[in-house]
Amino acid sequence: MQPADRLARRRHPLRSSAVRDLLADAHRPGMISLAGGLPAADLFDSEVFSTLAADLLANSPQEALQYGLTAGQPRLQAAVRALVKDRGIVAPPSDPLITTGSQQAIDLLARAFIEPGDTVVMERPSYLAALQVFSLVDAEVLGVPTDEHGMCLPLPAGPALARAKLVYTVTNFANPSGVTMSRERRLALLRWAVANRVFVVEDDPYGELRFGGRPVPALVTLAAEVPGASDWCGYVSTLSKILAPGLRVGFALLPEWVRARIEQIKQAMDLHTSTLCQELAARYLETGRLTGFLERARTLYGERCEALSVSLRAQLGARVRFNRPEGGLFLWAELEPGIDTSLLLARARELGVIFVPGAAFFADSGPRNALRLSFSSADPTQLHEAVRRLRTALDAGGLTP
Amino acid sequence: MQPADRLARRRHPLRSSAVRDLLADAHRPGMISLAGGLPAADLFDSEVFSTLAADLLANSPQEALQYGLTAGQPRLQAAVRALVKDRGIVAPPSDPLITTGSQQAIDLLARAFIEPGDTVVMERPSYLAALQVFSLVDAEVLGVPTDEHGMCLPLPAGPALARAKLVYTVTNFANPSGVTMSRERRLALLRWAVANRVFVVEDDPYGELRFGGRPVPALVTLAAEVPGASDWCGYVSTLSKILAPGLRVGFALLPEWVRARIEQIKQAMDLHTSTLCQELAARYLETGRLTGFLERARTLYGERCEALSVSLRAQLGARVRFNRPEGGLFLWAELEPGIDTSLLLARARELGVIFVPGAAFFADSGPRNALRLSFSSADPTQLHEAVRRLRTALDAGGLTP
Repeated sequence: MQPADRLARRRHPLRSSAVRDLLADAHRPGMISLAGGLPAADLFDSEVFSTLAADLLANSPQEALQYGLTAGQPRLQAAVRALVKDRGIVAPPSDPLITTGSQQAIDLLARAFIEPGDTVVMERPSYLAALQVFSLVDAEVLGVPTDEHGMCLPLPAGPALARAKLVYTVTNFANPSGVTMSRERRLALLRWAVANRVFVVEDDPYGELRFGGRPVPALVTLAAEVPGASDWCGYVSTLSKILAPGLRVGFALLPEWVRARIEQIKQAMDLHTSTLCQELAARYLETGRLTGFLERARTLYGERCEALSVSLRAQLGARVRFNRPEGGLFLWAELEPGIDTSLLLARARELGVIFVPGAAFFADSGPRNALRLSFSSADPTQLHEAVRRLRTALDAGGLTP
Repeated sequence: MQPADRLARRRHPLRSSAVRDLLADAHRPGMISLAGGLPAADLFDSEVFSTLAADLLANSPQEALQYGLTAGQPRLQAAVRALVKDRGIVAPPSDPLITTGSQQAIDLLARAFIEPGDTVVMERPSYLAALQVFSLVDAEVLGVPTDEHGMCLPLPAGPALARAKLVYTVTNFANPSGVTMSRERRLALLRWAVANRVFVVEDDPYGELRFGGRPVPALVTLAAEVPGASDWCGYVSTLSKILAPGLRVGFALLPEWVRARIEQIKQAMDLHTSTLCQELAARYLETGRLTGFLERARTLYGERCEALSVSLRAQLGARVRFNRPEGGLFLWAELEPGIDTSLLLARARELGVIFVPGAAFFADSGPRNALRLSFSSADPTQLHEAVRRLRTALDAGGLTP
């Protein structure tokens, strides 16, 4: 008998992330990767990090190397309060809980709320690693279609919705769709949450990477306008996209009844997030350099999004439809019906360009002809060349299964 | 209705860690803490960490700040292979999987193996944070008594054992008992694991902190002597106790059928462990300084264990029974029957000394008169004074509930 029959049975098979599987490929010489959601490498403020880390470790080793508190280092919690204040969150529901990336915050919420068979409501297409987390706790996922204003409301009534325990939404420049949820939808979602006693978590990794349009307030801010809503929504975010993913520092703002449970669970999961990373992040945020850093990031990503859009239009014309996100890292595109982007990827890979086929972002079966293109880590020349290679792959035909 | 009724119901209440609850107290002026399992602060090799971190961040920012691979940074995996080779593990079952502290490795194994109601076998008394993890996955814990040779065998037959999916054992200088499992017991446990198809995970955070006696080979090493055993055992460890807890770097050596599942789960949990921490740890291990560091640690902890033992004997005489661990950070003591060490803690706290009452380390009810004393973070003078305060607390009487 195979030992593997001794592993826990799962309602749904665990899927490996298509994105992470492609990461190794991204480093092949000559490869242009539109696959990952990696922040641009040239942005890292590495000299400042170097100086801060050297000082921290030499002069305050206890703070960086010793055990810390489960909820997070107080110095970073203070810096996070200042950070979210700049995002208009002036009265966070509780002290920030520091997590090992926002990914862990999603897992913590899943473990706090979900019993096997409970429903999680999320956008369709969905953030892949959140799909993985919800699969890990044996949740059923109710995928809600999105339009240019975000998750479509009212939510589709039925037995699945009746079992909902959690709504998970990426409100700004969603991964993979690039869509931002409108203020009206956010308010309507909050009213629904209060009426149905379902907790809504807003995941906002990209909100500060806005290069067009106007910001929409966070759910925890809008909750002030909806009676009772402050008990039913939370906010999670990360320093990964705005500063450095390698730190694995995320945070969660949650009402106390959720925060207390989450802290207990986190204690069992990894005791606390690296004190070195937390103290380093706190010191960086205290320098005030994030403002300038974000300005450079917005400019860079705006230019790259524009370059990709122009290339797609110029080289593929009517063969492609895509949105124009106002921020973030991703553009969502659809090719002619019948084209299978998994087949396209296999050929594109040989030609030196990779992306993520759209089907990867659907819990159930999704459209075969969609693809997610990340514009963050390639410069305009590379983006132009990437689209040229995509066209070559398309021109060869034979992409209908 | 309370929102909290919307949280997932649990088979067992989640307990907060008594140790972590005491941590805040440990910083009160004049307090001598025998409560935590903290490595001695004066040991940290902070200048070297400072230099290495400055160089890493200035010259290789991509390696420290960008996303990494879920299984871990290859450079740290190589350093871990060398580290465990020094522990006699010459043929690890697979590439090391890097985790966010060994705590996460335990959680990963729990999530890979346990369905609600499955049994985890562990020593009694038990490592508190492992109890928390197993409670989090709704496991039933079968606590096995230990003597001076470790977990007592044969394991107690019955319906609980029949549902066993995992054996969790801290083999060297167990927390809290200080006991090391003998070679004979390890081999017997492996034979049982093969016969019953139950996976055994050895948690070894303290093995290198041996200041007396002779090392016993790891289960994954001894597995070579038991046909089929290499499929049924794994090894997890951490840099927390031998280098710096703040890095949150642990690792797991697992047979491929387990490792593959674990990697999928970790991807969903936190994508990967901090690349900054991993690359820094790898560079530190490459310096070869760990050898000298561990020699200093062993000498220091040996002296402190001796000082605590001598003080206990001299000041409390026959009122206390305790073991003499050959390594690690903890000494397990029992006071006269009828004394409640929770009541003792309340009074000792006022007198400026804290410890962890023994009952905290039992899933079910444990002896009221036991206590765990950590000797790692107090010097001999402080240890002597701590025992004097304990005696004062005891002398006042009124400690029987």
